[in-house]
Amino acid sequence: MILLFLSDVDSAADWQAELGKLLPELELRVWPDIGDPTEIDAALVWRPPPGLLDQLPNLKLIISLGAGVDHILADPSLPPGIPILRLVDPYMTVAMSEYVQLQVLRLHRQDLIYRAQQQARVWRPLPQPNAAERRVGMLGLGVLGGAAALCLKVLGFNVAGWCRTERKLPGIPAFHGADGLAALLERSEILVCLLPLTPATAGILDARLFAGLPRGAAIVNCARGAHLVEADLLAALDNGQISAAVLDVFGDEPLPQQHPFWRHPRILITPHVAAATHPPTAAAAVADNLRRLRQGRPFLNRVDVSMRY
Amino acid sequence: MILLFLSDVDSAADWQAELGKLLPELELRVWPDIGDPTEIDAALVWRPPPGLLDQLPNLKLIISLGAGVDHILADPSLPPGIPILRLVDPYMTVAMSEYVQLQVLRLHRQDLIYRAQQQARVWRPLPQPNAAERRVGMLGLGVLGGAAALCLKVLGFNVAGWCRTERKLPGIPAFHGADGLAALLERSEILVCLLPLTPATAGILDARLFAGLPRGAAIVNCARGAHLVEADLLAALDNGQISAAVLDVFGDEPLPQQHPFWRHPRILITPHVAAATHPPTAAAAVADNLRRLRQGRPFLNRVDVSMRY
Repeated sequence: MILLFLSDVDSAADWQAELGKLLPELELRVWPDIGDPTEIDAALVWRPPPGLLDQLPNLKLIISLGAGVDHILADPSLPPGIPILRLVDPYMTVAMSEYVQLQVLRLHRQDLIYRAQQQARVWRPLPQPNAAERRVGMLGLGVLGGAAALCLKVLGFNVAGWCRTERKLPGIPAFHGADGLAALLERSEILVCLLPLTPATAGILDARLFAGLPRGAAIVNCARGAHLVEADLLAALDNGQISAAVLDVFGDEPLPQQHPFWRHPRILITPHVAAATHPPTAAAAVADNLRRLRQGRPFLNRVDVSMRY
Repeated sequence: MILLFLSDVDSAADWQAELGKLLPELELRVWPDIGDPTEIDAALVWRPPPGLLDQLPNLKLIISLGAGVDHILADPSLPPGIPILRLVDPYMTVAMSEYVQLQVLRLHRQDLIYRAQQQARVWRPLPQPNAAERRVGMLGLGVLGGAAALCLKVLGFNVAGWCRTERKLPGIPAFHGADGLAALLERSEILVCLLPLTPATAGILDARLFAGLPRGAAIVNCARGAHLVEADLLAALDNGQISAAVLDVFGDEPLPQQHPFWRHPRILITPHVAAATHPPTAAAAVADNLRRLRQGRPFLNRVDVSMRY
């Protein structure tokens, strides 16, 4: 079996080493050295150039190098009918939950204010509720959002969630649909976005959504940059509707040097590190699906292309 | 019953209101308006001026307004034999656990580096292990340290603890004694101090302790400022033995304007806010012990003065 590997952020050597342990017979072809395109059986990709996958006539499987598949579905010439798989790896799920716990705790404990106070040499204790008195909203209750919401609940936060379609999570009120979104926003002092990026969710973090939050709410976006309307965030920070934002993802990555987010005192930036793909653990999930391809068994974590996640 | 209230950081009005609900017959005398000193039955205090408690001839009980009692035992003329009680309040315990979780997650996720990178507009993802691969050491396994260690374990960290005398915590290796301290330090990439302040623990966070940690370890001190030898920390940060420090407590509070900690790039300061005394919940614990005084029943959370905690 021949697997095309393509990514500008993941290490081909690491993937080669880890997949080699599990599937010694696998041949990895690292883009752009793909050899004869007709020989490629499967593709393991992050942000493939539009049109590339359509040039592989015997391609039978596309696997994302990340939890989302928006970067694959964005290709207008994506060949139809080929199964597309999300990467689900417990290591990555844990990493995302850690990130969300850190950022929600940070906002809950007023860390941006204390950092500014330290800069100004100001010693001023602030009133501080317990986590049980802090209402957190989670947008997206899939593998990552669901796990992060449960972890926040364990930390003691008053957590509720929302997703497009109805879902249930133990002990966490879950809203859905447009009415449900308004209800979730209304009760969210801290709002976390872990939605899949689809035409229905692109730009969801906009002025209208911000207006539905309690005044002074904070947001965390660790899904995709395109969920956020950047100008609306800057306006909402200026007018006080939003008090702070923690952003791991951006419309343009790396974030351009002159972007106003870098120096905004109430925007905290991390360079897309919430949950990196981790070959030593993720390779097992990829190898499992490659074996399923060889054996003609159903795949795990297959995307419903009509839903786009 | 007449209770003396004395604190420069706690609100007498809040305590009056909360204790009044629980013990309507209680009379609160707020320092310095204590009236006839012979009428005072009990004292609820934070940092009482040395000699004051010795001037209350009918004092039968001293209750700390914080979890520690070092500020009471520091009085050389403290009248002997009077029971001294720590304040134990689940609300404060939760607040301390939140603080420790935030700061350990922050150090684990390399937040000080990412903050510096944002300042410099640098986009540079760093390798990031999961919490299970991060070894955290907890100094002190009392009410606060024990709870915080368990919470870190729930977050997934590889946690061990140490205290002077032998203790057991479910699922957490616990060391004790001098040899045990060396073993705990050796395995602690992040070290948290929640020890009581006693003559045996004052200055414990010194050059010798830092040298026992793995190179580049980070520390969190949310116990007392006097646990830390400040000059030794600055030297250990300079020579790289310690990579970062999060400090909530200081030898001199508020931290003086010209103190070098304020602007140190690898010291993060919070103004003694890890776990503030919370009258709406703490009043129940105080009222319970005042009832026990009236009824002659044994007190809860009495300090062993020979151990000093």
